[in-house]
Amino acid sequence: MNYYPVHVINLIKNIARLPGIGEKTAERLALHILSSPRAEADRLCASIQDVKNKVGLCSECFALSAGGVCKICSNSSRNTSVLCVVEQQADLVAIEKSGSFDGLYHILSGVLSPMDGVGPDDIKIKELVARIKKGRFEEIIIATSTNVEGEATASYLFGVFETFKLKITRIASGVPIGGHLKYVDQATLKRAMDTRHIV
Amino acid sequence: MNYYPVHVINLIKNIARLPGIGEKTAERLALHILSSPRAEADRLCASIQDVKNKVGLCSECFALSAGGVCKICSNSSRNTSVLCVVEQQADLVAIEKSGSFDGLYHILSGVLSPMDGVGPDDIKIKELVARIKKGRFEEIIIATSTNVEGEATASYLFGVFETFKLKITRIASGVPIGGHLKYVDQATLKRAMDTRHIV
Repeated sequence: MNYYPVHVINLIKNIARLPGIGEKTAERLALHILSSPRAEADRLCASIQDVKNKVGLCSECFALSAGGVCKICSNSSRNTSVLCVVEQQADLVAIEKSGSFDGLYHILSGVLSPMDGVGPDDIKIKELVARIKKGRFEEIIIATSTNVEGEATASYLFGVFETFKLKITRIASGVPIGGHLKYVDQATLKRAMDTRHIV
Repeated sequence: MNYYPVHVINLIKNIARLPGIGEKTAERLALHILSSPRAEADRLCASIQDVKNKVGLCSECFALSAGGVCKICSNSSRNTSVLCVVEQQADLVAIEKSGSFDGLYHILSGVLSPMDGVGPDDIKIKELVARIKKGRFEEIIIATSTNVEGEATASYLFGVFETFKLKITRIASGVPIGGHLKYVDQATLKRAMDTRHIV
């Protein structure tokens, strides 16, 4: 590190702060930025500033949005009677990529996690309830993860929705497509048996 | 990609332009930048701009420098009678880290590579010759890489230096420390035998 000018060292340190980027990679990237055309570095900086200045959260569903209501909430061809509740933006992207859903989303922006001090008031549950009361949804799909926090959040939401006259569903868990039964873990296999369905 | 606001897509694309960063990693980094404190993004941008604005090449040795002559060339405790010729800044850093050299460097800023149209006038050979003529060096160490281009560059430099009354040396090639002879490739082993020395 000491073999570089101080500005290069600063850049290496700042790049190494990004998740999953070690010091070796940061050094390589810093030297690339140094030797690449000025316009490329300027473009990178401008796009960083752009996301910080212009990207916020959708006022309806809390997905990323470049202003006010997001592309999905404002898309009139989506099915507005189904609402899919997910933990974060990346989950929305995963479901959209699968092409399996054309309804609306609600991003909780987190999961219940008492160990980390995250309670119901810290994620967008109040907003979700207000939205369901205001809207004309027929079905709410709970698509939180199947880890401990995701399952706990799903349970909590089932309780909250109990008095609502709505179809409340949970995405299925089970044997992954293309998977061998013998390699599937016990918890997943138990869930797959418990939630088996008539074909 | 289409599931993000346009500014986020731009940032992902610009990050993915960096060497060794795929689109998945770029997506992860962009979402991190988006959710991290504003000050962190500003620091990253400022340090990118800093290296582009303030870091240039040392006027003596062509190493990276924050202005005029670099830290090594201006360090009066270095041995100014030995000059080590390397291809690039990263090679200087590698040698400095090894702690095996306390002389001065000359960065060629490339290697001879006729296939890529890089000839003697495209790298800092003229400047090297001028520097040797002007200086009071006793030994020039050629520390270019041992691949085809590095060896060709070393050969060319031996030719250039032939008429100089100077000790011209080449860093040793051979069995890496900690290596098993049986796993060493033939070319390396041949070189190790050819350049064997009396202990």
